[in-house]
Amino acid sequence: MRLAELSERSGVSTATIKYYLREKLLPPGRRVSATQAEYDDAHLRRLRLVRAMIQVGRISVARAREVLAAVDDDSMDHHLRMGTAVWSLPHHPDLGDAEDADDPATGAARAEVAALMEEVGWTFAAEQGEESPAYRMLVGALRELARLGYPWDVEHLEPYARLAERIAVADLDMVQAYGSAEEQVEAAVALTVLYEPVLLSLRRLADAEESNRRADGGS
Amino acid sequence: MRLAELSERSGVSTATIKYYLREKLLPPGRRVSATQAEYDDAHLRRLRLVRAMIQVGRISVARAREVLAAVDDDSMDHHLRMGTAVWSLPHHPDLGDAEDADDPATGAARAEVAALMEEVGWTFAAEQGEESPAYRMLVGALRELARLGYPWDVEHLEPYARLAERIAVADLDMVQAYGSAEEQVEAAVALTVLYEPVLLSLRRLADAEESNRRADGGS
Repeated sequence: MRLAELSERSGVSTATIKYYLREKLLPPGRRVSATQAEYDDAHLRRLRLVRAMIQVGRISVARAREVLAAVDDDSMDHHLRMGTAVWSLPHHPDLGDAEDADDPATGAARAEVAALMEEVGWTFAAEQGEESPAYRMLVGALRELARLGYPWDVEHLEPYARLAERIAVADLDMVQAYGSAEEQVEAAVALTVLYEPVLLSLRRLADAEESNRRADGGS
Repeated sequence: MRLAELSERSGVSTATIKYYLREKLLPPGRRVSATQAEYDDAHLRRLRLVRAMIQVGRISVARAREVLAAVDDDSMDHHLRMGTAVWSLPHHPDLGDAEDADDPATGAARAEVAALMEEVGWTFAAEQGEESPAYRMLVGALRELARLGYPWDVEHLEPYARLAERIAVADLDMVQAYGSAEEQVEAAVALTVLYEPVLLSLRRLADAEESNRRADGGS
């Protein structure tokens, strides 16, 4: 397809597509004349992924390029490649940095996360530990809860972890519905980004619903 | 307690506390001399809430002041006050704006959200509709999923909503463990903010765990 059709099918303006091409977020089309190039379905998919990261995930162009490098690195085993691509997505900037081992709040959060991983049997997450950005983010978030005087413990967190497990089954089912390994890696990144606001908004709606139910019940 | 003790007990520097006092995020202490003021547990709690919003929630000072105005508005019924305070928290900036009724992608997302609310029986959320920022964020997130060519429907979303319901029970139990109505409103706001990174990091960890499990299983 030509640039105009790529724009129409993706809903992304031709000016924006040209910008992504210049920034190497999108591979060049196949030249068919001095002024025209031909694009295919792989371009359309890649364009959707770039939009998901930049528009919904509010990820910088430079970071999006890093994520795409991981997506395209086919030297790795398929699941490792998916994991690496998702790892390269940004996390909360102030929480991922749990390196100060001497800080007692961080030490306590670390011990609780390790206990939680054991309790729920997440052996892969436990092995990776703080090499994983999500693990560091969890330690950082719990450290802040403790520092701010909000109590929590493994018992508090276990139900959240159990629910995350079920969400993960739904997530992976969605990803594996895509045919090729390439598409699965792209979908894993896009759906990680795109479902975060879905989850957060559903939680806020459910909180309001539950609060209203308890108000009606007089509790 | 004096400023130094408030700083020590909250882990917030005296310079930052003085800044919050100037910005009216924290009510003034009780003057005991020309240069000294006395602070109490309400100051400590309020300081924690402000830290949660600004440091973890990355909320602007101006917005934090608006949230606190809602927290302090005791003219409302208790549950309404909690809901209003949480509503005033910022949402995803690009997704909350689902006002263009003529846009077919938005129209489709709206219809699906309404169908989902009916399916899961969230009558309060259905009544409030797009007056609720979380509802608008959900419509916006689904609109982007559809625009970007990622399929979803009510059947896809129902398990996520059911899990959000259970999270809400845990959330409200945590909030209601606080004694006074004032403390409950503050906790509702703080825990909404503080548990968002917990949930997102648990989901990413669970996704990696599930992906690894399926890789080992050869699927």
